[in-house]
Amino acid sequence: MSENYSLGEIAAFLNAELRGDPQTLISGLNTLKNAGSGELAFLANEKYVSQLPSSTAEAVILSARHVSNVKGFSGTLLIVDNAYLGYAQISKWFDTAPQFLAGVHPSAVVHKTARIGTNVSIGPNVVIDADTVIADNCYLAAGCYIGARSQLGEGSRIAANVSIYHDVSIGSGTTIHSGAVIGADGFGFAPDGAGSWQKIYQIGGVVIGDNVEIGACTTIDRGALGDTRIGNGVIIDNHVQIAHNVVVGDNSAMAAFSGIAGSSTLGRNCILAGDACLVGHIDVCDNVQVMARTTVTKSIEKPGSYSSGITPFMESREWRKNAVRISQLDSMARRLKALEKKNS
Amino acid sequence: MSENYSLGEIAAFLNAELRGDPQTLISGLNTLKNAGSGELAFLANEKYVSQLPSSTAEAVILSARHVSNVKGFSGTLLIVDNAYLGYAQISKWFDTAPQFLAGVHPSAVVHKTARIGTNVSIGPNVVIDADTVIADNCYLAAGCYIGARSQLGEGSRIAANVSIYHDVSIGSGTTIHSGAVIGADGFGFAPDGAGSWQKIYQIGGVVIGDNVEIGACTTIDRGALGDTRIGNGVIIDNHVQIAHNVVVGDNSAMAAFSGIAGSSTLGRNCILAGDACLVGHIDVCDNVQVMARTTVTKSIEKPGSYSSGITPFMESREWRKNAVRISQLDSMARRLKALEKKNS
Amino acid sequence: MSENYSLGEIAAFLNAELRGDPQTLISGLNTLKNAGSGELAFLANEKYVSQLPSSTAEAVILSARHVSNVKGFSGTLLIVDNAYLGYAQISKWFDTAPQFLAGVHPSAVVHKTARIGTNVSIGPNVVIDADTVIADNCYLAAGCYIGARSQLGEGSRIAANVSIYHDVSIGSGTTIHSGAVIGADGFGFAPDGAGSWQKIYQIGGVVIGDNVEIGACTTIDRGALGDTRIGNGVIIDNHVQIAHNVVVGDNSAMAAFSGIAGSSTLGRNCILAGDACLVGHIDVCDNVQVMARTTVTKSIEKPGSYSSGITPFMESREWRKNAVRISQLDSMARRLKALEKKNS
Repeated sequence: MSENYSLGEIAAFLNAELRGDPQTLISGLNTLKNAGSGELAFLANEKYVSQLPSSTAEAVILSARHVSNVKGFSGTLLIVDNAYLGYAQISKWFDTAPQFLAGVHPSAVVHKTARIGTNVSIGPNVVIDADTVIADNCYLAAGCYIGARSQLGEGSRIAANVSIYHDVSIGSGTTIHSGAVIGADGFGFAPDGAGSWQKIYQIGGVVIGDNVEIGACTTIDRGALGDTRIGNGVIIDNHVQIAHNVVVGDNSAMAAFSGIAGSSTLGRNCILAGDACLVGHIDVCDNVQVMARTTVTKSIEKPGSYSSGITPFMESREWRKNAVRISQLDSMARRLKALEKKNS
Repeated sequence: MSENYSLGEIAAFLNAELRGDPQTLISGLNTLKNAGSGELAFLANEKYVSQLPSSTAEAVILSARHVSNVKGFSGTLLIVDNAYLGYAQISKWFDTAPQFLAGVHPSAVVHKTARIGTNVSIGPNVVIDADTVIADNCYLAAGCYIGARSQLGEGSRIAANVSIYHDVSIGSGTTIHSGAVIGADGFGFAPDGAGSWQKIYQIGGVVIGDNVEIGACTTIDRGALGDTRIGNGVIIDNHVQIAHNVVVGDNSAMAAFSGIAGSSTLGRNCILAGDACLVGHIDVCDNVQVMARTTVTKSIEKPGSYSSGITPFMESREWRKNAVRISQLDSMARRLKALEKKNS
Repeated sequence: MSENYSLGEIAAFLNAELRGDPQTLISGLNTLKNAGSGELAFLANEKYVSQLPSSTAEAVILSARHVSNVKGFSGTLLIVDNAYLGYAQISKWFDTAPQFLAGVHPSAVVHKTARIGTNVSIGPNVVIDADTVIADNCYLAAGCYIGARSQLGEGSRIAANVSIYHDVSIGSGTTIHSGAVIGADGFGFAPDGAGSWQKIYQIGGVVIGDNVEIGACTTIDRGALGDTRIGNGVIIDNHVQIAHNVVVGDNSAMAAFSGIAGSSTLGRNCILAGDACLVGHIDVCDNVQVMARTTVTKSIEKPGSYSSGITPFMESREWRKNAVRISQLDSMARRLKALEKKNS
């Protein structure tokens, strides 16, 4: 569990202007609405400004522009440039995740050719295969599997029951959540001309950068020829599918159920919202936002926000009446044109 | 495997009117079409009424309104108010899942601070971390992981290779299927203003009620601040995503690939059909049905059925002709209005 | 790692016309663009014909129709009927997956009633339950679980952390990737009339054919009554959902995020593209292609290509303007009709 910290040390870490007693101790983080004595809150969203005056938080992180809204609030202020970022930065101090001790649990199975760094924690029933490299300060939780010749960079954390196949290279400071699968075969098959599928053995690997976060039950397939590549600082939610030979650029974000089909590339600083996808063999440039449920069917060369997915929701009876007209759209367009001609 | 039961005891359990010999033994359940000697079938769907006369089932559970359709059927009748519910209730008697013996498999790794109830079955390679509580009559199958300070209520069942993180509380009589992940980090990151993402440590937990069912490869993330909450009697299919700080009300149902984004609430007795989703930070009231593929983009305050997802399917050539018109819809609407003006 | 092979033996295996020295050794496969000395490439897609003249590949597999494009290419030619199939066939020779030795790892937990064939490799922490049958030449990787009475046919391969429940039958030559779950309970519940759900125990099993490939984090549920059935030669990508009592015909393919709801049948040689789905209780005939994101809401009796999913993507501002018109479509159609009447 987290310790207590003084507002003075918190303000110093956040480079915040402190309006209150630096000796006051903070025992936890909470929302403006729920925070009480000894708890630190934050105000990042305009929507919650009205909660500030009545908040019982011990202290609040806020941006300069909100200082005028504090009337009635009796706690301490920590004034920063970006309150949401400040909250994010301090959140690590109050993390509830257990701290793990270095060492290899006796039930773990570590191949004799594996090279294990210092201060590494290897949990119960972890299996580490031949010719692997686990750098210093890594943490591998219960039941995860690291295949032959795979590598984990310094300080990476692999949660319980993660599966990493052979020839996967993972950078430093990267976190992979439970149920994720890295390096399974890409979906490659050739029709054999007689109605069956001939498997294409997937002989490439996966290369994942530094400071990447990979969500639960997310899959990143190995390359067919050459590697699937995830850049540095990429953040990936749960249930995401990244197919063989995809390239994802640095600092891009992929929300739940998003996916990229084989051999496509996503640029840097892109965002795929929930259930957005790219078809195979296309290229999306840097700084593109793809809205929820959108299918990107062609390459994108211009930064911006793109959509094709979300249709207005309504009562089901209304939807059915409107949706059936989609099947008449081409006819409607032709009829409209004919009428225009008649009326011109 | 299941035992045999007499029609008399089955009728008594179902509070059914029995028209036949109560001594007849039943060895299994089957469909009307496939049931044979010694097997019990049911008639719940009007669609299958025509199969009744020729059914070779030993006995059939049916509703009073279908008794007039039995002409030709020589088996025994069990007449109930709701035949589908009757079938559901009796199905447990014929369950094929192996019965597990209490005890801790020698390969399991149970932390010395874990409190384990009586009549608990802990399978091979299960890992139970520090300060956990496993109540009486729980069953944990091979390879599952229970993180520090997490709790399992009485009679809950955790299938093979389930991952439960730290600080997760699960009620009694709850079942979690293989590959599910409970308590992984929510997808919380703040832009750092320099093109990178600052992780927001997820310091809340997960609280799951009693008699909940959670499908395979489903993920329920831990809260950022405060808990993600699943009510009592909720049923959740495979590949479902429940993000941080979501609240799901009692007895709601979520089908495969459905999802709820961060901080949204779903009321009680709601249904999300397959691939339906709620965006973040909205509230859906009780008794709402969301149809397949629908994206709920705003709060719903009125019970009912809502849609936005399913468009009519057709041959692909037809679809392409119509779909391209969607990109012309705004123009078509304006042109239609202009024509109306001209014609008025 | 893979060995070297002579072009002579490769050409013989592929039944290819060899234009070059049969003694030349090949050490690996690569793309036309990246292949260098000692590497074999292939030309299957018209799009890459222009890369051929400047390719530094040692040799290239190509179809007769592309021989006229080789001007400038100094490597060896292997001329076949179908270059993509040729590449697929030879890819196995260069597979990088580790070869596994027969034997049972001492950490594996194999029930005394399990029948294990010859030349079987059972990895660390594998758990094999009672009355199972594992045929010859199977490979089970770390941490996978095989439930009671389940069977694996000859030469099947189960990757790390796969979960197979009880009473699942798997054919020969079948591969299942990490995180997949076979035989979890189907999503079957009856409303109890008082607002709660009564679980329907799922007493059927799963039967999977020969030479099937099942992707990572894919789920195939057990039948409610009777079995869920997957034919021979079926290929299934990651994150696929196959519900209870579904039947999938031989050699069909299902891409990522596709799904089939309960009791539906998919014919032989069908393709479900990414995120395509079938609703429950329908039948799709042989030789049907369902395009990405399509929802098949009715049975299909005629082979062909069907769609309902992909709408044109565009800048988000444009999309919003057009999408809102979908909610006016029925009104637009009526107004168009009225205008036509007026103008007739």
